[in-house]
Amino acid sequence: MARILITSGPTREYLDPVRFLTNGSSGQMGAALAQAALSRGHPVTIVSGPVSITYPSAARVIWVISTREMLDACLAEFGACAGAIGAAAPCDVRPKNLAEQKLPKESIGDSLALEPTPDVIAALGRRKANGQWTVGFALETDRGRERARAKLATKQCDWIILNNQHSIDSEQTEIEILDSERTLLQVNGSKASVADMIFEQIDRRLIAPAVQNVLDSR
Amino acid sequence: MARILITSGPTREYLDPVRFLTNGSSGQMGAALAQAALSRGHPVTIVSGPVSITYPSAARVIWVISTREMLDACLAEFGACAGAIGAAAPCDVRPKNLAEQKLPKESIGDSLALEPTPDVIAALGRRKANGQWTVGFALETDRGRERARAKLATKQCDWIILNNQHSIDSEQTEIEILDSERTLLQVNGSKASVADMIFEQIDRRLIAPAVQNVLDSR
Repeated sequence: MARILITSGPTREYLDPVRFLTNGSSGQMGAALAQAALSRGHPVTIVSGPVSITYPSAARVIWVISTREMLDACLAEFGACAGAIGAAAPCDVRPKNLAEQKLPKESIGDSLALEPTPDVIAALGRRKANGQWTVGFALETDRGRERARAKLATKQCDWIILNNQHSIDSEQTEIEILDSERTLLQVNGSKASVADMIFEQIDRRLIAPAVQNVLDSR
Repeated sequence: MARILITSGPTREYLDPVRFLTNGSSGQMGAALAQAALSRGHPVTIVSGPVSITYPSAARVIWVISTREMLDACLAEFGACAGAIGAAAPCDVRPKNLAEQKLPKESIGDSLALEPTPDVIAALGRRKANGQWTVGFALETDRGRERARAKLATKQCDWIILNNQHSIDSEQTEIEILDSERTLLQVNGSKASVADMIFEQIDRRLIAPAVQNVLDSR
């Protein structure tokens, strides 16, 4: 069956050995997607930032801290996978400088210089070959569908899954799968049930056609 | 017996509904101190930032997110306590502005304006009355003893417990208890065993004399 790459959890971007920028992503959606993929017979590689949940034991898990490390791990794994799902919430900015020692409070100053981090799912989008596909997530708090569609294009994703901040660190979620033209699925429920519905779509619309293309080309 | 206030875990300082500054404090040391206090017969109130560990069920737990909330909860509780232990790692800076909606990556800009947060253990230090005591923690990566002693004075702590970044999110720790003149205890081991040794000192040197003073004044 087709190996699936799933990114999961947050990343951390440190300004010194103690303090960092991050978000509240718990890895629950990544774990639910991994379980759904495994249940459908697909081997899974998870590239995960720091989380306290337990991933399915049948999944191969690669642990990372920063967005740069997540990108490097994904680039190393993507070639062996049929497609990738970006369920992680990688930090998209990082402190420009990383202090070697913990900064005394007085030395932090009144502003923190930032720079963009690499865009993991966009980088995989640019590397797609031989029928590979990528599915991104967009977490938006306003103008969701518009922003999600823009991300679909700039990140060269086949689909983008729109969700909102109430999904963060919650067992419930509410999602909408968008391709460039339409809404493929709009559901809410437990992350486990939503992940299963997402994978039913992925199996039918992304994996089966890719397999058929390979068979047709023989 | 004497009720003990224990702060525990990290705090979070949000710049928008998704992204925040924090640190990797797991709450393990706070939980171990709470267990040690309970084992010695002291009721415990924990004021904790977001963590995934479970606190002893006999402890009263007040959950907070930001440093400001931690301070407010501690000020409300301190009057009913014999003393406070600041085992939390509250963020000492926060973004100056909190965006109502998730900032598009392009809108974050190349610097983040910061401002100091209130100092929780120092605020309790200023409020001490009737034999109350405060014990702070100093996590330092260099010049530890010097910086810890400076914090002892500015935060008006009775003691300061020095540890280092290897203690963060680890089951092991290495600590040194300092008062204004000397090192009272220097130990390493599991957080459970170290917490018990810390509480043996607190019972003997802080709680017992305070009780004696009350008895003497009758």
